[in-house]
Amino acid sequence: MLALLAVFKIDNIILMDLDGVVYFGSKVAAGACEAMAYLRNRKLECYFVTNNSTQTRRQYVSKLKKMGIAADAGHIITSAYATAGYIAKNFPGAKVYVVGEHGLKYELKRAGIALTSPENADTVVAGLDRKLDYGKISDAATVARRGRFIATNTDATFPVENGLLPGSGAGISAIACASRNPDVVIGKPNRHIFEPIETIHGHKNARYIVVGDRYETDIAFAMEIRAISVFVEDSPINKLAVEPAKFKHLYPPDYTIRTIAGLPRLLEKIV
Amino acid sequence: MLALLAVFKIDNIILMDLDGVVYFGSKVAAGACEAMAYLRNRKLECYFVTNNSTQTRRQYVSKLKKMGIAADAGHIITSAYATAGYIAKNFPGAKVYVVGEHGLKYELKRAGIALTSPENADTVVAGLDRKLDYGKISDAATVARRGRFIATNTDATFPVENGLLPGSGAGISAIACASRNPDVVIGKPNRHIFEPIETIHGHKNARYIVVGDRYETDIAFAMEIRAISVFVEDSPINKLAVEPAKFKHLYPPDYTIRTIAGLPRLLEKIV
Repeated sequence: MLALLAVFKIDNIILMDLDGVVYFGSKVAAGACEAMAYLRNRKLECYFVTNNSTQTRRQYVSKLKKMGIAADAGHIITSAYATAGYIAKNFPGAKVYVVGEHGLKYELKRAGIALTSPENADTVVAGLDRKLDYGKISDAATVARRGRFIATNTDATFPVENGLLPGSGAGISAIACASRNPDVVIGKPNRHIFEPIETIHGHKNARYIVVGDRYETDIAFAMEIRAISVFVEDSPINKLAVEPAKFKHLYPPDYTIRTIAGLPRLLEKIV
Repeated sequence: MLALLAVFKIDNIILMDLDGVVYFGSKVAAGACEAMAYLRNRKLECYFVTNNSTQTRRQYVSKLKKMGIAADAGHIITSAYATAGYIAKNFPGAKVYVVGEHGLKYELKRAGIALTSPENADTVVAGLDRKLDYGKISDAATVARRGRFIATNTDATFPVENGLLPGSGAGISAIACASRNPDVVIGKPNRHIFEPIETIHGHKNARYIVVGDRYETDIAFAMEIRAISVFVEDSPINKLAVEPAKFKHLYPPDYTIRTIAGLPRLLEKIV
């Protein structure tokens, strides 16, 4: 009887977005620490899943630690990390030209992938690059025309204190216009960013709960992996973005909370 | 009887693309001078119509002169010139933030349009800018989100000696991703670039003949303004571009010639 119960036990695994949910830029969200403490007390496993490819997983660990949130690198999934894993698995000998920042280059190198100049590359990997310029767009397009084109994510924008900045998607649109669309996009809403977690939990009776503040990214991702979706509406992106209503219609969330402070009460009901 | 004939006289007006047809970069196309001499002898009026917004009309006059081709500025229509005319006519008080090069800034100023910083602008005008960077994309997107967004043209690429470089369309795609699509695109295939010519000839019995090397730009433009289209197939863009066949299917030309050297013989038949 006990054995039977054990078979039907379902693990609830939280896939938590970071920017706009747990913090806003460098400011921790009110109630975030309490929500994390609640998950810990309930023994609910939580992965932090972010499309941001500019920082390493270790940088996220220390960023969260400063905010009073304990996390290990194994529970931080960035689009850079998932991209590195995807290339190491599918194209192990790839010679990669990177358009992106430190986090992406670090994770690729750590996965044993060779980074090279555009002349010698057979693959371009593009993520957010705040030093993007015409020369990089041109080089990336040249590589994409003759080889593979892999995008970490295609977020259109991200919020900062006084507005929105162009996301990874802006640079990728420029490269794509001058060459062709990416072969694959790794980040949310695509399931490739889920693969590192699926490898660990895919065989279990696991139910995933995605918490995020973007319809077209987080909620669409939840639909893609058949997870429960929790939309966090009180985020800068939803005040600043041009057409959130359009995306709300396309990707209706299962649950909506105002801020992460409302997560424990919701989980009390649904877990 | 003579009067009647005069009424039905049709002016054939050539709208001639430049790069890839009359010259390749700084190299005049074989047969271009002879073709121009033929037009002059036949008294066929010819406008040079280019989506390139980086140079002024005067710069084109001297460029063509060096190649042995006589042209006056009044017969050179650049997307920059047409954009300046469009804004002067439709939004005379516009305060414009420019993403673009000298030719665009010059034509806008010449048309009496105020150029300003992104903070003070109500309109962003974007063309090819080979010094494009992340900051310009970000500033342009910010202006586009709160004001007008006007694109000189959306050419994906342009050919250079050793390959393709990103065209105006690449930068505009980046800005559009981070904000929204342009309100209006002036250059070919759109008819706005035709407006300066239409103003002069629109009342006459004029038949237009578009000569160009891009299906999606020149031939589509000919279809847009109900002109006869002549496709010049032996151009670098048609050897280097990724999917010319797709566009050939969408925009079938009326006539195809290998190079501009074949134009006089074709015009002998159709004019």
